[in-house]
Amino acid sequence: MNGNVKEFHLVAEPVVREMAPGFKVNMWGYNGQSPGPTIEVVEGDRVRIFVTNRLPEHTTVHWHGQRLPNGMDGVGGITQPQIPPGKTFVYEFVARRPGTFMYHPHADEMTQMAMGMMGFWVTHPKARHPLIAEVQRDFCFLLGSFDVEPGSATPKVNTMTDFNTWAFNSRVFPGIDALNVRRGDRVRIRVGNLTMTNHPIHLHGHEFEVTGTDGGPVPRAARWPEVTTDVAVGQMRQVEFVADEEGDWALHCHKSHHTMGPMGHAVPTMIGVDHRGIAEKIQKLVPDYMVMGDKGMADMGAMEMPLPDNTMPMMTGSGPFGPAEMGGMFTLLKVRRDQRPGDYRDPGWFKHPAGTVAREVPGDSAPPATSPVTPAAGVPDASVRKPSGHGGHAH
Amino acid sequence: MNGNVKEFHLVAEPVVREMAPGFKVNMWGYNGQSPGPTIEVVEGDRVRIFVTNRLPEHTTVHWHGQRLPNGMDGVGGITQPQIPPGKTFVYEFVARRPGTFMYHPHADEMTQMAMGMMGFWVTHPKARHPLIAEVQRDFCFLLGSFDVEPGSATPKVNTMTDFNTWAFNSRVFPGIDALNVRRGDRVRIRVGNLTMTNHPIHLHGHEFEVTGTDGGPVPRAARWPEVTTDVAVGQMRQVEFVADEEGDWALHCHKSHHTMGPMGHAVPTMIGVDHRGIAEKIQKLVPDYMVMGDKGMADMGAMEMPLPDNTMPMMTGSGPFGPAEMGGMFTLLKVRRDQRPGDYRDPGWFKHPAGTVAREVPGDSAPPATSPVTPAAGVPDASVRKPSGHGGHAH
Amino acid sequence: MNGNVKEFHLVAEPVVREMAPGFKVNMWGYNGQSPGPTIEVVEGDRVRIFVTNRLPEHTTVHWHGQRLPNGMDGVGGITQPQIPPGKTFVYEFVARRPGTFMYHPHADEMTQMAMGMMGFWVTHPKARHPLIAEVQRDFCFLLGSFDVEPGSATPKVNTMTDFNTWAFNSRVFPGIDALNVRRGDRVRIRVGNLTMTNHPIHLHGHEFEVTGTDGGPVPRAARWPEVTTDVAVGQMRQVEFVADEEGDWALHCHKSHHTMGPMGHAVPTMIGVDHRGIAEKIQKLVPDYMVMGDKGMADMGAMEMPLPDNTMPMMTGSGPFGPAEMGGMFTLLKVRRDQRPGDYRDPGWFKHPAGTVAREVPGDSAPPATSPVTPAAGVPDASVRKPSGHGGHAH
Repeated sequence: MNGNVKEFHLVAEPVVREMAPGFKVNMWGYNGQSPGPTIEVVEGDRVRIFVTNRLPEHTTVHWHGQRLPNGMDGVGGITQPQIPPGKTFVYEFVARRPGTFMYHPHADEMTQMAMGMMGFWVTHPKARHPLIAEVQRDFCFLLGSFDVEPGSATPKVNTMTDFNTWAFNSRVFPGIDALNVRRGDRVRIRVGNLTMTNHPIHLHGHEFEVTGTDGGPVPRAARWPEVTTDVAVGQMRQVEFVADEEGDWALHCHKSHHTMGPMGHAVPTMIGVDHRGIAEKIQKLVPDYMVMGDKGMADMGAMEMPLPDNTMPMMTGSGPFGPAEMGGMFTLLKVRRDQRPGDYRDPGWFKHPAGTVAREVPGDSAPPATSPVTPAAGVPDASVRKPSGHGGHAH
Repeated sequence: MNGNVKEFHLVAEPVVREMAPGFKVNMWGYNGQSPGPTIEVVEGDRVRIFVTNRLPEHTTVHWHGQRLPNGMDGVGGITQPQIPPGKTFVYEFVARRPGTFMYHPHADEMTQMAMGMMGFWVTHPKARHPLIAEVQRDFCFLLGSFDVEPGSATPKVNTMTDFNTWAFNSRVFPGIDALNVRRGDRVRIRVGNLTMTNHPIHLHGHEFEVTGTDGGPVPRAARWPEVTTDVAVGQMRQVEFVADEEGDWALHCHKSHHTMGPMGHAVPTMIGVDHRGIAEKIQKLVPDYMVMGDKGMADMGAMEMPLPDNTMPMMTGSGPFGPAEMGGMFTLLKVRRDQRPGDYRDPGWFKHPAGTVAREVPGDSAPPATSPVTPAAGVPDASVRKPSGHGGHAH
Repeated sequence: MNGNVKEFHLVAEPVVREMAPGFKVNMWGYNGQSPGPTIEVVEGDRVRIFVTNRLPEHTTVHWHGQRLPNGMDGVGGITQPQIPPGKTFVYEFVARRPGTFMYHPHADEMTQMAMGMMGFWVTHPKARHPLIAEVQRDFCFLLGSFDVEPGSATPKVNTMTDFNTWAFNSRVFPGIDALNVRRGDRVRIRVGNLTMTNHPIHLHGHEFEVTGTDGGPVPRAARWPEVTTDVAVGQMRQVEFVADEEGDWALHCHKSHHTMGPMGHAVPTMIGVDHRGIAEKIQKLVPDYMVMGDKGMADMGAMEMPLPDNTMPMMTGSGPFGPAEMGGMFTLLKVRRDQRPGDYRDPGWFKHPAGTVAREVPGDSAPPATSPVTPAAGVPDASVRKPSGHGGHAH
């Protein structure tokens, strides 16, 4: 505090982020980290932010979603001069409305966001607000995408769509902590997207509502029940739910490539290719030759494949039942009933009650394939089905 | 039924799908088909599903959107062991809430969904539900994308964005049935997206509402009128409308490339190139040489171009008035008033009442180009227009 | 007017569009422009539209979102014969519902929209409508994307994702006019998307609501507060707000590449590469050799780099404080209180009240980096934060 004013200091600078254990990337961030520190204030606070530029090029900070004087909006060239390297600028405004915000450069924006420059901002309501619920847990993350060539450490900044590293808070699974909650907690997750594409964020085992955006709280009557909310670029979504199902529930982007590590995208398919007899011949010439992908990619989850230094595997991580075959934008919501109040440390893997895990049965006990499963209604395409009114199902 | 339990059996296995007449693709699916069979149950049903793995690699099944015990959630490695090839696992849970769901693997997910592994699940309400309407017609389809090289038959599984085959229920136009309804029917279309990008599903001639998602029914006050709903990856949308306009109405993804067959995307433009004199010279050397694309692509709708075996044309299909120049995610909603109740066979092409089809007129009867069309308001960009209050139009 | 009928004439034809000063592109459009003229009518008007085809290939016009006889829907081959080059067809229908619409071809659609064929349509309400507000300013623009190789002038029509020119009304910044309004005006912006991807349209300094779609007005209770609305392909969004903050506010697509000019997307990163000593050696061989990108891209905003003829720079435009480093889908909302009623000419740059612009301060006056900024909560990933109830902030 400086008198009535809450003061903050952001230093824009190069940082090294360990995106997952052993995988370090040269980023640009704030105060030694990417994303920068989360700024938390209360509605009505007067805020003064000093921004020092230790990058090799000029920058600015745009306070995304805020009501503020036009000259504090941070659009380089338009609303202010750029902040040259080595200089400090000061921004000052009142945090006029409560909610979920972010900050990021509006100067050489493509490059600076591709390098990881972004941060979260939460303005808490001053008083009880009819559309802002009390929650027991309040998480936030920013979605980022990077194009880091295997074996290198600095993102390619011109990439528009062909990214290979998809991050929550500039980290990738298995380098992302779980979200640990107690059963019955009301949970809020705040998400902002600064990539180049939509990310449909999907939660297992629960339904949620979007209760607010960077534009403000969503009226109750306007809320939809969802299990997947599509977060567009430059959008923020505040989702809420009561965590009433115990277990380890996946929380991830539903685009299958965004829960994977780096790979080539223009690769011929090997599925169904019969390598028998060929591999032996090739191995006479190339002793390390491996047959890969003819049966799918699942083997890669457990594979010890030689990789270039400082490179994430395509699939990695493991759970209590074996390799998780994931990467990128993936983590777990861990719901437990027996944690002590206030203890939100990682509880380890869920202990399933007896008989509640999918299990192997002898093959011949299975009913035949002509079982009562409804075939796709006889049509080879859009399944035409019977009216679905109550009691009207087909069995 | 086995006692109180509804039993189903899914066999995960390689299948051959004829995506359109003459175009067969090697997929992976369930019970001989891709998508797998649609599972229909009633709210409150206890369901037991045997899953036999006849794929060359391990798999699991995730019951997307369901409330269930954590160990039945199907996330390989995290909530259960993978199902090895040749083995059968059993899942069991109660279908606790009515709605629109899907199932798909959560094991080597990128590969297995790229190969077509997915299926629909509908849970009908047990009793009349205030937010679930009675409908006369209830259709469902899953959106899939494949990258099948012209002349080949197995999808490339590493492709992230550059797909060439966009499917409803693993079929492409003109291999997709029409949605046949009677005028006045209340129609529900359930759509789920398991591709790598958003699909804006557009219906001609009617407005609709999204009445539910995989998270549950949408409250009435929260529904928007739409003609195009954007279905994000991992989302399901249940749209409803009264089919009150007779005719053959297009229903398609509005991304123009998603209603096309395979083509190269990095092709120089030929529009406006003058080939005169050149073609003849080239044909002396290459007798089959054709001039293509200098006037646009419309000729390809009718063209008998030599294609590699097992390859879809770029544009295909035809209607009562000639080539439709379509492909991929495209079909028709056929609304008729004179069908007998319960007869939902394809009624053929719409017979337009006299004078209701756009028709040729002699060129000189047309008003001059300086007619009352409002020019784009004098500005070369964002058109600034007059207030649009009632009666306030510019003519 | 022709009797009771409002007549219009659209001529589909090649046009040259100056997308920004000095950058001319060979497009296809209507009546000499792309987008074509905006058609404005009043609810209940009977409309007759003559369409003359002066393109080298056939075309049709689809009246996106309209209720009309099936034969007037404009789907070539399906609902009408294609309009051959040189011919005129006539469409006739009643504009049955008020709202925001567009028109575009439904014939060789991919090519014709890639060439710029599209137009806006507004149907004003006949009488005061409870969900359609009176506004003082009503803007409209269509989103288009083009792939114009540097040095060329005709778009590549097969491109699916790798576009390089992102346009509002077929213009790119700095070739786009500002949206000029008076403080206190209620402003409506109507946007339609005919590209191949979602465009999240972001406004600075204000919150807005989506008040209507091409499906009709959005009920009040269903509206969300937003600062960024995601406009999917084939969707139209009508956003409204009261312009109550003076200044020059950015209005743009939030995808960072969509506010840039053409560039290569598969470029190695130069950030952090030390060229010292190398540049001199290369310049002995290649006198024009420049070191670029080792410090980021910001220099390019001011750079006079030799470009091929008829090529947009990657970053361009300038504001009162220097280069804006923008391009593509970017413009400004200029809010002024002192304009005379009805005077909506561009007011020039905003004159900021004293002390309201971010300003340089001596570096040593800044608090140290260990200031009260909340670090990202100690976890390297999803930030776990304290309850956010009123008064519950961490400071």
